[in-house]
Amino acid sequence: MDSQSYRLRCVKCGSEVKAEGWVWRHETCNSPLTVEVDLDEFSFESDRPGMLKFHRLLPISDPRHYPEIVVGGTPMVKRRVGGVDVFLKLEYLNPSGSFKDRGALVSVARADELGIRSIVIDSSGNSAISHALMGPLKGIDVHVYVPSSAPEGKIALLRLLGAKVHLVKGDRSEVNRAALEAEARGVGSYFGHWWNPYFIEGVKTIAFEAWVEAGNLDSVIVPVGSGTLMLGIAEGYLDLLKLGKIEEIPRLIAVQACGYSPLCEDTADCREKATLADGIIIRRPPRLKQLKEALRLSKGACVTVSNEDIREALKDLLKMGFIVEPTSAAGFAGLLKAINKGYVEVGEKVLVPLTGTGLKMVKKLLKVL
Amino acid sequence: MDSQSYRLRCVKCGSEVKAEGWVWRHETCNSPLTVEVDLDEFSFESDRPGMLKFHRLLPISDPRHYPEIVVGGTPMVKRRVGGVDVFLKLEYLNPSGSFKDRGALVSVARADELGIRSIVIDSSGNSAISHALMGPLKGIDVHVYVPSSAPEGKIALLRLLGAKVHLVKGDRSEVNRAALEAEARGVGSYFGHWWNPYFIEGVKTIAFEAWVEAGNLDSVIVPVGSGTLMLGIAEGYLDLLKLGKIEEIPRLIAVQACGYSPLCEDTADCREKATLADGIIIRRPPRLKQLKEALRLSKGACVTVSNEDIREALKDLLKMGFIVEPTSAAGFAGLLKAINKGYVEVGEKVLVPLTGTGLKMVKKLLKVL
Repeated sequence: MDSQSYRLRCVKCGSEVKAEGWVWRHETCNSPLTVEVDLDEFSFESDRPGMLKFHRLLPISDPRHYPEIVVGGTPMVKRRVGGVDVFLKLEYLNPSGSFKDRGALVSVARADELGIRSIVIDSSGNSAISHALMGPLKGIDVHVYVPSSAPEGKIALLRLLGAKVHLVKGDRSEVNRAALEAEARGVGSYFGHWWNPYFIEGVKTIAFEAWVEAGNLDSVIVPVGSGTLMLGIAEGYLDLLKLGKIEEIPRLIAVQACGYSPLCEDTADCREKATLADGIIIRRPPRLKQLKEALRLSKGACVTVSNEDIREALKDLLKMGFIVEPTSAAGFAGLLKAINKGYVEVGEKVLVPLTGTGLKMVKKLLKVL
Repeated sequence: MDSQSYRLRCVKCGSEVKAEGWVWRHETCNSPLTVEVDLDEFSFESDRPGMLKFHRLLPISDPRHYPEIVVGGTPMVKRRVGGVDVFLKLEYLNPSGSFKDRGALVSVARADELGIRSIVIDSSGNSAISHALMGPLKGIDVHVYVPSSAPEGKIALLRLLGAKVHLVKGDRSEVNRAALEAEARGVGSYFGHWWNPYFIEGVKTIAFEAWVEAGNLDSVIVPVGSGTLMLGIAEGYLDLLKLGKIEEIPRLIAVQACGYSPLCEDTADCREKATLADGIIIRRPPRLKQLKEALRLSKGACVTVSNEDIREALKDLLKMGFIVEPTSAAGFAGLLKAINKGYVEVGEKVLVPLTGTGLKMVKKLLKVL
């Protein structure tokens, strides 16, 4: 029950920002923040469910603030692919069907800690669904701003979960503007996961679980759009490094969609835009600087994938028994590419999270394949 | 790796039937069979994933026959409802989204053990999806006979998984006839889960997991259509009883839909047919005799639920953070009814499996609520 102490730090100028009330960016720099939790030991409480085993490493004062739901503790299965030991972490079996539940669990706990009773999200996808599932468990209203072109099925699910859905005409940046205007009008506090630093803290538990189960690994291969998955996993391994549990962090290999790859220097393989993996169709992620730094720090790499790569990977994954969405398949396609390019070598151990379920979009998948 | 020995027994005449080749009924009696595994101890192998911890208690000779997939090991969460300690087993987080994955895992292993390369299923729902997911992992073709009126989304998912879908005009009994004719024509071996005795053996692992995690419980509340869930759980508790782990089995409380309740003697609460819970809209389950016997043996009871009961329970479950289908909600509605009728008393411990995910039918749920 001990209270964790932590600091917020501006990604741009590096200065410390006080974590009093709800703070989601450094206003002076208009820059995202990171959370630095004071770690003393890698404490693991096995009587808590799922990812809350790691509560002591999260920036939440009291576990009573978490929504009462089991997130994480997802199965990890080993498969041999191209001579590589691949550890697939089945994140799509989280309660709302994606790894985003981890970030939302900590975010909603932070909202509850501050007595916030209404939050504003901009997203049309899995992150909105995760918050829409968990907000009400703490009596928190969830306002979601989505492009009016967003998939019907996901909007239906948001409504089913009781979210207030606001359709916005225009692209992703106009949706973001609408959400920030709503915050300014007092609709609720802005919790969009591209910015919210607490979200990433939840995601880091993937690294903890992978380490507990399989020890240290050579590489981690992740689809990168806004980059919260890669940054969360990096954060988890950096925590393990600080605590002396590992000697170096695994190489991070970012997988981006052709045409939406600000992180990849080499886009020679791309002929046309890859539009299938809707979770990573993002041109200007606010945390781009951090993403570059994470690749540098881990001696990582970036690979691009095409629609054809994603389609083939999706078929492979279905044949292996994994009902996942195209964004998960992008990660697996990236694994095959990283092996081909020699970023991953025979005999290595590689973590590949399967990020989201295919059950939300069966008809789309059928059309794609 | 030891080989389990077991017997098949006719439910009607009680005679032993040889388990050589694929046997799914006692032909003389046209009656379903049960499996009796020779149990020596409750052995638990923690290095196996999910329900395969209990391999030694299952009728499969060698674990290599199981499809390579993680089934079971689902979270169990405790909630206090009306003074009762309710243990919700989140079966909807299995890989294809329902508890049926447990039965299909053992069924497909049995097919593989016998070298069967093509199976025939009649179902339009979760059981077909489970088999369609797992068959291909063992190179087994899955032919599914479904009513042409079956939900579009489920048919799409079956096709996505590579099942051969055969649409049949007519009701459930005509679909069954078409499947049996297909078997006779040599399309494949009939593995329909209403009959297949191995399916129930897989389902019994729910009881094992619940017992390992929470010890013995007072009651188990389950939606009953064909009854494989209730019979599987009963079988698991009977195994625990034989092995001396418990002194008596929990009371089984069957929940049936109004208008489709051959097991319930008291239908006074029903005014109209309850059509929402499509998983239990079954008039003549082949294992009715066994179901009655299980209720008698466990001093159990049967309750009926209406569409309104199901709708309210679905709303409650969504508010609690569980995205489930109406059939799961029927079980929860049955819990509330069992408390009201005094079948479950304050202070008791009750197991309620949440059987299937709502993600396969979001638009339907939105329409219903």
